Amino acid sequence: MVDAWYIAPAMALISIITGFYIHGFVKKQDPGTARMQFVAGAIKEGARAFLNRMYRTLGMFVAVMAVVLLLFLPHPIWATSNIMGNVTLAFAYVFGSVCSAIAGWLGMDVATDANLRSASAARDGITKAFTIAFRGGAVMGTSVIGLALAGVSILYFLTGDPNVILGFSFGASAMALFAKAGGGIFTKTADIGADLVGKVEMDLPEDDPRNPAVIADNVGDNVGDVAGMGADLYDSYVASLMAVMVLGQVLGGYLLDMPLVFAGLGALSSLIGIFAVRVGEGGDPGSVLNRGTYITVVLFMALSYAACTVLGYDVRFWGAATVGLIAGVVIGVTSDYFTSINRPPTRITAESSVTGPAITIITGFSYGLLSVFPPLVGIGLAAWIAYSVTETIGPGYGVYGIGVAAFGMLSIVGIVVASDSFGPIGDNAKGIAEQGGLDEKTIEILDSLDAAGNTSKAITKGFAIGAAGLTVISILAAFKEVAEAELGAAVAFDLMNPLVMLGALIGIAIPAVFSSQLMLGVGRNAFRMIEEVRRQFREIPGLREGKEGVVPDYAKCVDIATVGALKELLPASVSAIAVTLGVGFIFGVEALGGYLAGCIFSGLVFALLMSNAGGLWDNAKKYIEEGHLGGKGSDAHHAAVIGDTVGDPFKDTAGPSLNTLITVIGLVAHMFLPLFLLFSIF
Amino acid sequence: MVDAWYIAPAMALISIITGFYIHGFVKKQDPGTARMQFVAGAIKEGARAFLNRMYRTLGMFVAVMAVVLLLFLPHPIWATSNIMGNVTLAFAYVFGSVCSAIAGWLGMDVATDANLRSASAARDGITKAFTIAFRGGAVMGTSVIGLALAGVSILYFLTGDPNVILGFSFGASAMALFAKAGGGIFTKTADIGADLVGKVEMDLPEDDPRNPAVIADNVGDNVGDVAGMGADLYDSYVASLMAVMVLGQVLGGYLLDMPLVFAGLGALSSLIGIFAVRVGEGGDPGSVLNRGTYITVVLFMALSYAACTVLGYDVRFWGAATVGLIAGVVIGVTSDYFTSINRPPTRITAESSVTGPAITIITGFSYGLLSVFPPLVGIGLAAWIAYSVTETIGPGYGVYGIGVAAFGMLSIVGIVVASDSFGPIGDNAKGIAEQGGLDEKTIEILDSLDAAGNTSKAITKGFAIGAAGLTVISILAAFKEVAEAELGAAVAFDLMNPLVMLGALIGIAIPAVFSSQLMLGVGRNAFRMIEEVRRQFREIPGLREGKEGVVPDYAKCVDIATVGALKELLPASVSAIAVTLGVGFIFGVEALGGYLAGCIFSGLVFALLMSNAGGLWDNAKKYIEEGHLGGKGSDAHHAAVIGDTVGDPFKDTAGPSLNTLITVIGLVAHMFLPLFLLFSIF
Repeated sequence: MVDAWYIAPAMALISIITGFYIHGFVKKQDPGTARMQFVAGAIKEGARAFLNRMYRTLGMFVAVMAVVLLLFLPHPIWATSNIMGNVTLAFAYVFGSVCSAIAGWLGMDVATDANLRSASAARDGITKAFTIAFRGGAVMGTSVIGLALAGVSILYFLTGDPNVILGFSFGASAMALFAKAGGGIFTKTADIGADLVGKVEMDLPEDDPRNPAVIADNVGDNVGDVAGMGADLYDSYVASLMAVMVLGQVLGGYLLDMPLVFAGLGALSSLIGIFAVRVGEGGDPGSVLNRGTYITVVLFMALSYAACTVLGYDVRFWGAATVGLIAGVVIGVTSDYFTSINRPPTRITAESSVTGPAITIITGFSYGLLSVFPPLVGIGLAAWIAYSVTETIGPGYGVYGIGVAAFGMLSIVGIVVASDSFGPIGDNAKGIAEQGGLDEKTIEILDSLDAAGNTSKAITKGFAIGAAGLTVISILAAFKEVAEAELGAAVAFDLMNPLVMLGALIGIAIPAVFSSQLMLGVGRNAFRMIEEVRRQFREIPGLREGKEGVVPDYAKCVDIATVGALKELLPASVSAIAVTLGVGFIFGVEALGGYLAGCIFSGLVFALLMSNAGGLWDNAKKYIEEGHLGGKGSDAHHAAVIGDTVGDPFKDTAGPSLNTLITVIGLVAHMFLPLFLLFSIF
Repeated sequence: MVDAWYIAPAMALISIITGFYIHGFVKKQDPGTARMQFVAGAIKEGARAFLNRMYRTLGMFVAVMAVVLLLFLPHPIWATSNIMGNVTLAFAYVFGSVCSAIAGWLGMDVATDANLRSASAARDGITKAFTIAFRGGAVMGTSVIGLALAGVSILYFLTGDPNVILGFSFGASAMALFAKAGGGIFTKTADIGADLVGKVEMDLPEDDPRNPAVIADNVGDNVGDVAGMGADLYDSYVASLMAVMVLGQVLGGYLLDMPLVFAGLGALSSLIGIFAVRVGEGGDPGSVLNRGTYITVVLFMALSYAACTVLGYDVRFWGAATVGLIAGVVIGVTSDYFTSINRPPTRITAESSVTGPAITIITGFSYGLLSVFPPLVGIGLAAWIAYSVTETIGPGYGVYGIGVAAFGMLSIVGIVVASDSFGPIGDNAKGIAEQGGLDEKTIEILDSLDAAGNTSKAITKGFAIGAAGLTVISILAAFKEVAEAELGAAVAFDLMNPLVMLGALIGIAIPAVFSSQLMLGVGRNAFRMIEEVRRQFREIPGLREGKEGVVPDYAKCVDIATVGALKELLPASVSAIAVTLGVGFIFGVEALGGYLAGCIFSGLVFALLMSNAGGLWDNAKKYIEEGHLGGKGSDAHHAAVIGDTVGDPFKDTAGPSLNTLITVIGLVAHMFLPLFLLFSIF
């Protein structure tokens, strides 16, 4: 009989084929007018240029790191009889980053085909425009599932060793950190540059083709929200799969295969969910997107329960996965509460804008602080319930249960990524329509797609943050198991051990420092962009007046955003990794456990705070723009715009990079564990 | 031979006498013109009205809590043979809150005498004005030392039991939470009310006597920064003394007395430091204040070293105390770096104001995030070094060493409180001088006092935050010791125990939620104040024009600020205590340990972030007002004012209340421990 876990590679293949099928479907659609194609072409070219340059930078980083791995891990090459072990790990690492890169490329390429065609289809109504935008985004989802499961399955088939998958996961995480943080800096650099010079100084409307930074702004949505978010969830997905497999290996039996079976079923559920998402004329795309997620959740619960019955898995593992999944939904729903335009937090913040921008900021920030409570309690309860349910199976199973909960949350990653990628496609479509001069009604339809994207984004962000939290808790557990196995002694992360406390205190500072570096980087880079936009308006004759045939140098702006983003993200990423290694080598494994916990704690707090406050300010502004409290141009609107601008790097640069950061730190710690055990000072 | 620890009550007595002596000195000084006396009288009356009302509210809270303690602690009254134990603890609790209340009253009363006389003396130059303001503030310092050491000594003499001191400490902490959070809401309510209507709408200058909220604004400085800060440090001081004594009791020997000896020497050093602070004409009051702190630090190190030699204490304890003290200084210096007007973070934030308020906020917030790193690492290293040094004495001594480090940091609390209380007195003196119509030169001198107060504030805030962190770590240690003694089994706060993790995740949310409640409370209360100020301008004929003899209803504004502050702080305080009890009763002692650690972590992060970002924005504004980047009235100035307004509740309401919050939570957990052990569900 074929092993049950082969469902994972089978679904990987099906996902990839589905991706190509959707690509064909998108390509077949009407690409619109020449002007639209020109704009879309510039966006696509810019996005490719960014990814190209980023992959090159990342390539050097990966090459250096691969050599380090080859020489030192899992054991120093001079002190091991198994040199092939080092070769395999280094290969898995490179393989992981390449797979993630391919997934990002595929997803973004289709997204930048779909934006144009969605805009074009909107001329005939919402149904087709929505379908194109959503399916276009879904390719990012199918690519994530496909390349993650393919990579993991191949390595598992060849080696049967989840520790090799750790290398693969580490490769994906380096990619994710670069894509997410780099994309985040890129997108806000372009956004601020386009707004401050174009809108404020030159008084141009949003998405005006005369604005040299406008294409960079559109590119930013793709590299930040499509490729960045895709790489982030690819990373969490693989990491949680790896962690639960490492924990399963210790316990033996079917526990090593089961995660792959669940992953395959989650992929299947996501694919069905993706094709179930359709909207009729006059329908509400926002609720349709959420319905897709709910369908997938229910389907996965049913399929995984059936799998437990058929394959004889203990049903308590199904319980743990379900707990994780429910926690994900609950976190998403509370994020939605705090950021939705129809709820008190956003309304009250909008109302406080009447008293001026300072009160807008204080109020929105306060609600952001408040919003961290339900998700943190939810994550804590999910971990504890999953543990309590599975610990009754036997000692050691509880920790495995936490891993299953984390993985349960991520099992539906396909639909989550699809819903999330839908947002920037809708946003881009609107931009292309405006720059292409399409009519009011079309733009209105595309506006409703854009708004729906914002709603589903709150929920998917909640998922991403919750999943990262649970994943790193299970990485921490796996880290401990491996450390104990290597040391042959018990390892505890007892807070009364002052080394653990020291580690935790350093750890809680890291997400704050990382956020700070990214946001200061945005400021510096935006400054360069502003100078360039001003220069173009000054030096290109006829640009400002919109003379026929005069085109700004879009590529130069894309280039500045790209180079700056890579330049600014490197010190932040490298210093976070360096501090992690420093804590491990100086203070040892127990301090590192505290450090990881500290990173999780403050990473979650700041990710939730910044994402939710940012989303809330954005919607408070939109609420006023709908005509409330004086509407556009009023003092309240002016205040709300300032709130929104503060929120931009919160929600699009720093906040969402923190998930990735804590996963990367967890993987670095886990990866280098053997060396810490050999060489640490204390 | 007299016991060495009698130096503590002796110094308590000397401190109290010194306080009265200084009060006499201040009272002797020239109280200035009738107009000045009228203004100062209104401030004093308002401050007393606030304290009166707060003490009444607090009285009810204390009465209820005393009954709870009487019935349930240390053991349920129906299940103990030692009913006197319950009576003693309840008495100690009431005693603790009364002592803290008296200290607050004394300190604030003298501060509100000194402001007027400092303003008056400034007409003759800086030396006398400085001396009056500083000594006036020093009474808050001597009151804290005096009433803390007197109370602790009396209880220790009568019972010899540090657990009774826990009750005393718990009483002080309830007081501190009310005073700090209530004062913080009061001061910002009045500030925003005075600014938004008076300065912005009516175009009045700062401190204009026509502004109905101007007295409330001046009162706010006293109740927030004098009484509030005093109660806060009183609380930390007593709590750290209690924690180290509880830990010392387990180990026996001289370890129970030694903290009191160190406390007495610290008090002596502080008194000498206070009288060493003088400034000549043309001198820089800021550096003089810091010199006072350094003199005290060196003196305490010398005296405590001598005590170890003479009394035969192990010199490693001296080492632990010194580590704590050095950490305090280092934290203060780094806070100073991030907020000083002469350093890059403030300068760069000021420069970014040229691009508008959003960039001001993002930049300042980013530096605030960055500023958490050195103090957190400093606290972690201090705890670890103190532990490592003292653990070599024998098992169990390491944890005691952490307590000694915390207490070492707080040993010089006298000079710290004195320097801090100096700030609002200088600020008030300036206000009185302006409302009293004194000349430019006098106001310039008082301005330099005000600026010096801001500098020393950064350092003392660093101390307060660092001390609270180390103190709660040692409360956590004491909590664990007591739990183990009661249970007769080992207790561990292992992060891999999902209950500990759950507790930690809940704990890290609490400081965020608490901050949020306070800041939203400020917003609501400021709204009421704004309405009242507008009403007075509308309904009192001749007020706006400044007609001779027309006086606004200052008392009504003070009343609104008072009632609102108490109303807003109650839900925040009660819910934080309720969640603490909830975690203890539902999830048990180990979860509560994780919870406390979580509170420490996020409490420190947010306290540092908010205090430093707030201070930085304030100084960025001042930098522009000095004439840089376009000076007053420029766009950059406008942006910086918005930054400063955002920073106000950060640095004066939420940030500094968090020290108190984590101490209170630590004490609640410790206090109710016996009940958690009896009744918890999991």
